[in-house]
Amino acid sequence: MAITPKSMDPNALEFEVIAREGEARTGILKTRRGVIETPVFMPVGTAGTVKGVRFEELESDDLNARIILGNTYHLWLRPGIEIIRACGGLHKFIGWERAMLTDSGGFQVWSLGALRKITEGGTEFRSHIDGALCFLSPEISMEVQAALGAEIAMAFDECAPGEATSEEARRSMELTLRWAQRSKEAFERLQLSAVCDGDEPQREMTALPARQALFGIIQGASHLDLRRESLDRTVEIGFDGYAIGGLSVGEKKPVMFEVIEEIAPRMPADRPRYLMGVGTPEDLVEAVARGVDMFDCVLPTRNGRTGQAFTSQGKLNIKNARFAVDQRPLDESCRCRVCRRHSRAFLRHLYLSGEMLASILLTHHNLAFFLDTMRRVRQAIRSCQFAKFRREFTEQPGSGLGQDCV
Amino acid sequence: MAITPKSMDPNALEFEVIAREGEARTGILKTRRGVIETPVFMPVGTAGTVKGVRFEELESDDLNARIILGNTYHLWLRPGIEIIRACGGLHKFIGWERAMLTDSGGFQVWSLGALRKITEGGTEFRSHIDGALCFLSPEISMEVQAALGAEIAMAFDECAPGEATSEEARRSMELTLRWAQRSKEAFERLQLSAVCDGDEPQREMTALPARQALFGIIQGASHLDLRRESLDRTVEIGFDGYAIGGLSVGEKKPVMFEVIEEIAPRMPADRPRYLMGVGTPEDLVEAVARGVDMFDCVLPTRNGRTGQAFTSQGKLNIKNARFAVDQRPLDESCRCRVCRRHSRAFLRHLYLSGEMLASILLTHHNLAFFLDTMRRVRQAIRSCQFAKFRREFTEQPGSGLGQDCV
Repeated sequence: MAITPKSMDPNALEFEVIAREGEARTGILKTRRGVIETPVFMPVGTAGTVKGVRFEELESDDLNARIILGNTYHLWLRPGIEIIRACGGLHKFIGWERAMLTDSGGFQVWSLGALRKITEGGTEFRSHIDGALCFLSPEISMEVQAALGAEIAMAFDECAPGEATSEEARRSMELTLRWAQRSKEAFERLQLSAVCDGDEPQREMTALPARQALFGIIQGASHLDLRRESLDRTVEIGFDGYAIGGLSVGEKKPVMFEVIEEIAPRMPADRPRYLMGVGTPEDLVEAVARGVDMFDCVLPTRNGRTGQAFTSQGKLNIKNARFAVDQRPLDESCRCRVCRRHSRAFLRHLYLSGEMLASILLTHHNLAFFLDTMRRVRQAIRSCQFAKFRREFTEQPGSGLGQDCV
Repeated sequence: MAITPKSMDPNALEFEVIAREGEARTGILKTRRGVIETPVFMPVGTAGTVKGVRFEELESDDLNARIILGNTYHLWLRPGIEIIRACGGLHKFIGWERAMLTDSGGFQVWSLGALRKITEGGTEFRSHIDGALCFLSPEISMEVQAALGAEIAMAFDECAPGEATSEEARRSMELTLRWAQRSKEAFERLQLSAVCDGDEPQREMTALPARQALFGIIQGASHLDLRRESLDRTVEIGFDGYAIGGLSVGEKKPVMFEVIEEIAPRMPADRPRYLMGVGTPEDLVEAVARGVDMFDCVLPTRNGRTGQAFTSQGKLNIKNARFAVDQRPLDESCRCRVCRRHSRAFLRHLYLSGEMLASILLTHHNLAFFLDTMRRVRQAIRSCQFAKFRREFTEQPGSGLGQDCV
């Protein structure tokens, strides 16, 4: 297990593991904006909104999301950093008082494909909004993330495709490591201007609202030797937490789990371990079993908008004609407000009518399902029942890799 | 003032005026699904959903909508009456326990324009969904509305355009009167099958959940003599309540108010008076001053989706560049959750980013503004302050006919 250099101000983020079962662990992540129990799922709030979900709902007992994601790439392009700065940072701009994590933009820019050109300095790309030529680098990403002011920022990385050769993956990993070093240096310069005076941070527009935490990202595609090297050298640079990037980008599922199984247990035990952009509820449980603490994924929100619900009996496609007069809730064992109130027949009608409320309600239920799964995972680990929970969860009808079972 | 024939079961709906000031009045409308204070604004729930608003929000203190509208035309075409019947009626289908009113489909079919052909029997038209040839008549409308099972159903009417000549308007009015008679007869036959045993109505699929009320609709375009005749002859047929239809369909605003001023005070004093499809907050207050009790309008929901907010300072177009860093709420004197939490700058960003949350939040605020205006109207009438309220409300900056003033 790697040793963590404590080079960063420990006050930016505190993390403590409180119970373990095998590699699975539950812990407490303390941020300036609330305490987060791990393993935790972070709903994705790309452009400053978790699509279709009001902040009151995210805070409600139904969901109780303790931390959400914001996207550097999207917010930088629109509304732009000057506007967010003028409005006092991302929290104040969107009206969210709880914790946030911002990604670095690295993955979004990479996923633009033909629209971007990667050089040593950074990535040149065309905006997906207006085609304008833009340039993102570790330094710019850190500056944008400082202006956004999330509790957790991410290093600017480069992602290799799932099927990258060893040579391609090494080239990409080496670049990511150099960018990690530059990210950290730029981040630390910016943090010098951080103002932190307890509960009521000074609201100077040019200063950071408070010291942020920075996570490093481990790359290396499907090559375990590169992954291990990436881990060691990223830890050597020293971050407040560590993420596994570059998974769920085209590789096969067993390959993904092989990487997680190899890397997660080797990640610093006293720092949060974050698996980026993964996955289905079953993926989350399986990754927790391998030692992961934090997750984000667009599945609950995106699938909600395309008529798919996650349930304890597997995935459900609300468009299906057999739900036309089905008066049961989406999931008979779910206690979320959507399941307490609305039938499959009504949700199908809303979806087929193109009504916004279909997306709103399906997204709400899906987030409730993901967040509740994490609650049950934490509870199971605390009571030494995780092995049993995992078996039951992954053996349930319809679990495993997305088949349509309800 | 016309005398009301009490031909209908009075238990379907009870109405009592509890205070007056001039022609303005506040009252209590008792339905099987709750007590409604009038004047009341009914949010429009066309396809079984008030677009972009969760039912929990409609029930919340912020909005507290006591009755919403459903559309016979839309629900008949999709999901269709067999599905709604199989799901136990509209309330059960959509998950709404409070009162509802369904329109008859007459106006929707009329507004299809070239797509419909009106005959003595009814209206033939092409579905806006799939172009299928359909036929709606008083008898069919009553049957559909019985299956929907709202507390208040509307007679099937024909609307004349705002600029209709006296001859055209008379022809249309005479047809509406014959259809009103047929509506009532069909309605009463259907009500014979109503089951009403107190709080827990028997849930037989073929029987009505409980006796409904039926409102007649006064037509006559802008011709006051025809309007008076339509009123007298509609009252002669005898309904549980009366509506003014065929306004806000192209006529000038002074013409609309002339009709309301002529007709509303002459409508049966002991029955609710409903002005269909009107209007801005100022229109509502002005119509209350002329004796109207009930309103519905798509303005708060539709304008919410196109970026327009109603405020105490007039209409506000959230797209406007001057809101880019405006950290004030939509309306500084509004206490709704949107205004308590979110800035104009954020709402503008959401709107320009095409985010669903823009529509959700603007619609919520607009409904809060309309419903709160009605609360203030009722309070003003009860405390004999309505004249003052009306003066202040219509003299506020930006009031009057929709200019953009904030």
